[in-house]
Amino acid sequence: MRIVLLGTGNLATQLGISLHRKHVDIIQVFGRSEITGAHLSGLLGCGFTTSREEIRLDADLYILAVSEDAIPEVLSGSGIRKQLVVHASGSLSIDILSEVSENYGVFYPLQTLSRQKEVDFSTVPICIEANTPENLGKLNKLANILSDHVYQIDSVQRGQLHLAAVFVCNFVNHLYSIGEKLLLEHQLDFSILRPLILETASKAMLFSPPEVQTGPAVRDNQQILDQHMRLLEKHPEWQQLYKLISIDIKNLQQ
Amino acid sequence: MRIVLLGTGNLATQLGISLHRKHVDIIQVFGRSEITGAHLSGLLGCGFTTSREEIRLDADLYILAVSEDAIPEVLSGSGIRKQLVVHASGSLSIDILSEVSENYGVFYPLQTLSRQKEVDFSTVPICIEANTPENLGKLNKLANILSDHVYQIDSVQRGQLHLAAVFVCNFVNHLYSIGEKLLLEHQLDFSILRPLILETASKAMLFSPPEVQTGPAVRDNQQILDQHMRLLEKHPEWQQLYKLISIDIKNLQQ
Repeated sequence: MRIVLLGTGNLATQLGISLHRKHVDIIQVFGRSEITGAHLSGLLGCGFTTSREEIRLDADLYILAVSEDAIPEVLSGSGIRKQLVVHASGSLSIDILSEVSENYGVFYPLQTLSRQKEVDFSTVPICIEANTPENLGKLNKLANILSDHVYQIDSVQRGQLHLAAVFVCNFVNHLYSIGEKLLLEHQLDFSILRPLILETASKAMLFSPPEVQTGPAVRDNQQILDQHMRLLEKHPEWQQLYKLISIDIKNLQQ
Repeated sequence: MRIVLLGTGNLATQLGISLHRKHVDIIQVFGRSEITGAHLSGLLGCGFTTSREEIRLDADLYILAVSEDAIPEVLSGSGIRKQLVVHASGSLSIDILSEVSENYGVFYPLQTLSRQKEVDFSTVPICIEANTPENLGKLNKLANILSDHVYQIDSVQRGQLHLAAVFVCNFVNHLYSIGEKLLLEHQLDFSILRPLILETASKAMLFSPPEVQTGPAVRDNQQILDQHMRLLEKHPEWQQLYKLISIDIKNLQQ
């Protein structure tokens, strides 16, 4: 399978490197940034172009790894009409590609990708969807080369999955940030919280989260809840967050 | 060091087992529940009593591993006056023990303890505090037998640490619960989110959380934020939570 990678950001880079390691043939990288594109195409040992007109048309698969709002622009200038093209977005429907090509689908790796940390794709769930069984078969084959966790889900499910991912990843990370800020105010280092963070995530690997909920809210310990409200007096937004989550914890357990 | 363990719950059990494995001498368990007390004292190979008057007075250390509100009652009936007694609470000041004994302190393991999962205490931060340098020395020695992460922090710092722990552990686990609920509504299994949860926690082991914040809020992607608001229409409390955290993510990055 010969692939053209459309994009040069975090996703394109990490996906490209992982595919390359698995000996999947990436024949070209397209991107708007000369520098990141030159670097990525160097890593992958393939050609690079910044011109949509120069996107090669002889690949078996085109992976859109650009931000959601850049997709129409990238595609409109290219010659892709019949080729299999997929986007990698959690929140966009498969249908946005129906007017672009006769063959289309979705290839969505459910993971948080940062420049700072390389991801092992073998553990990353990859969610696939396609407009025909044949195209689905092609995507399934590729996904299984990369990952042990391949899911065939539709666009409605994927939208909901992305929403859930925002809660368990993006919002969770923000709670870590709040924890760090609270410690800094009292000259305590964030590292003291790290074992607790890891144990909390490890429990979620084994149990359904409501079964292992701990803390003052689930114990309904009003004295501690009051104490925490006082400690948060300088942070009304975190006070509000504390109240909202504590009420919801009590409700969910009932 | 000879220890009496006051309590038979999760903390008493996990602490007792870990101390026993390290060949620390637990001479007695006190608790109100006959069954859990008989079980724990069996595991530890020591005596057990449900009577406060029968708490032995020849130990070097008394560890209060009962809920915060049960502490006064347990102590009032015992003969402890000069013996070193510690509580294990994140939120209580050391001072609550000053009228009980001449020697007192705090021995607070910062971890989420559930019946369902045994904890390796060697990775658990233990926060200690005592009323004299001599008592602090004793607690320091014991804490170092159990854990590689011993912190001497005062009651004000400990209260703040406990508050931060509620955010990064209890509240985080609740966000996992919301994720699970959202998936169930669309016939998706929670296991699909597990690699993402683990990766998010793993990143926090290496980085300061704001540095690796990802998601629609930090990218200020209004289209996705609107889509998620619609998907949450049936859950006004999660809609409110979503808005609150998204605004706070944007604010924290500025």
